[in-house]
Amino acid sequence: MASPPAAPVLLLTGARGIIGRHAVALLADQGYRVHALGRTPGQDARITWHAADLLDTAATARAVAAIRPSHLLHLAWTTEHGRFWSDPANLDWVGASLSLLRAFAAAGGRRAVLVGSCAEYDFSAPGPWAEDAPLVPHTLYGAAKDGLRRIAEPFCRGAGIDLAWARLFLLCGEGEAPARLVPSLVRAFAAGQPARTGPGERQVDLIDTRDAGRALADLLLSDVQGPVNVARGVPASISEIAGTLAALAGRPDLLAVGALPARAGDPPSLLADTTRLQDTLGFLPRFDLQAMLADALART
Amino acid sequence: MASPPAAPVLLLTGARGIIGRHAVALLADQGYRVHALGRTPGQDARITWHAADLLDTAATARAVAAIRPSHLLHLAWTTEHGRFWSDPANLDWVGASLSLLRAFAAAGGRRAVLVGSCAEYDFSAPGPWAEDAPLVPHTLYGAAKDGLRRIAEPFCRGAGIDLAWARLFLLCGEGEAPARLVPSLVRAFAAGQPARTGPGERQVDLIDTRDAGRALADLLLSDVQGPVNVARGVPASISEIAGTLAALAGRPDLLAVGALPARAGDPPSLLADTTRLQDTLGFLPRFDLQAMLADALART
Repeated sequence: MASPPAAPVLLLTGARGIIGRHAVALLADQGYRVHALGRTPGQDARITWHAADLLDTAATARAVAAIRPSHLLHLAWTTEHGRFWSDPANLDWVGASLSLLRAFAAAGGRRAVLVGSCAEYDFSAPGPWAEDAPLVPHTLYGAAKDGLRRIAEPFCRGAGIDLAWARLFLLCGEGEAPARLVPSLVRAFAAGQPARTGPGERQVDLIDTRDAGRALADLLLSDVQGPVNVARGVPASISEIAGTLAALAGRPDLLAVGALPARAGDPPSLLADTTRLQDTLGFLPRFDLQAMLADALART
Repeated sequence: MASPPAAPVLLLTGARGIIGRHAVALLADQGYRVHALGRTPGQDARITWHAADLLDTAATARAVAAIRPSHLLHLAWTTEHGRFWSDPANLDWVGASLSLLRAFAAAGGRRAVLVGSCAEYDFSAPGPWAEDAPLVPHTLYGAAKDGLRRIAEPFCRGAGIDLAWARLFLLCGEGEAPARLVPSLVRAFAAGQPARTGPGERQVDLIDTRDAGRALADLLLSDVQGPVNVARGVPASISEIAGTLAALAGRPDLLAVGALPARAGDPPSLLADTTRLQDTLGFLPRFDLQAMLADALART
């Protein structure tokens, strides 16, 4: 008699991050055995936390060998706001990610979800970008993610690992860096100070970190392979985001859209084609712009 | 009064390899201060040897900080014959190369030559391939080199390092693996056994390792940036190579061209367009096919 298929053993990195915290909780909610690897253990007692610095490849390899995960969701990366686009540490995270993949393969891993970025696409090409849009990274961060995927794909193919590559767009949610658009506007409204933004016509695609975490958890448990944009699929202009937030805060008088210059290197728009995410996973976001921004205000 | 420009300090990895040994000697011949980094020191007393495992990123970083090189020629990689095309260690060498680059930048490095491969090109596209031919690696080795370049280029741009990327084609010379075409034919002729090859019509571009070492030394000392094919630029069929060797060995009777099947994954041809190498460096190979093969016979 054949033995029943082994229960999946899930391993997450970046499980305390702004997306990881939601993904890990959703997977634990569904009753999976979930392990998390990182420098500092988290609080959720349903998760088995392993303290290891992912940049310490030997320690990481030992931990992965002990866990023997079947599924890997690798979220950890250098993400310091205002710095990660050109941070030399991007190179360390490529190396750490490749070492993690090797350890995962050596431990018998079967399915990996690695995390890429909209920064892999050609910022000068008009969006929305589908997964087969030209890849011309304009930043070191985008190049590091793009290069990692180009190496990880044939490695996983050779190692018998199914690989999905989640390209994250812009996020909004608990824990995001204070200097980012939404938190900085929320702070201005709370302080009664001018709420300044860059050019109002710029279009972006904001997704709630709870939705992004759910998309990644769903992707991990699916058999979808290759690149998948993770975004809401709904454009919003900077004007619309700031205006909605001002209305919710009751302070439209403080709004100063366009008062800041465009930042060098900012793409004219950052819009995702989410057809693949919807068609392959049946994923639909639960939080619209109004809900995201109301929650951002409620968190202050 | 402005101080005179500092004398270049050259750092090589893979200096004991089949190309590195020639590059390092040529650079020492020209009077440069040459340092070499690797697990085992070499014999040339003109070179300052530093014992460090490049896969030990901390040890490598310490050595590079002490050397403070202005120029880096990074040749070391996993190159075990019959294995390196799909060796998982390719991932380690991407990480090690990125760590080396970071250490080089931190030490004030100004110019780097990294080494790629013809395996970055699309094997199914007809050659000869110029540097702007489509990059569609068919092997993990090719993907690792391609991914490394895509990350190294923006990193070097940001760090103020001039980067050249040498794409090596097929090599012939002292120290090459015994299982490769020329050494295996030489052995067969010496033993009086049938000298079997794969399909005779396959075309390749063989360069002597002494010429390749000179091209890389010249490239390191030049200001050429971006990808440069390093090859002889002269096609030779497997028939021609085996036939020339048989004639030189005086054993055409042993020749069995086409007696072996084509190996899975072998490209129909591997031909370089060397216009860029010739035009930017004025490089001309010194050893033709006859000379390379005569030397191979003389080495047995």
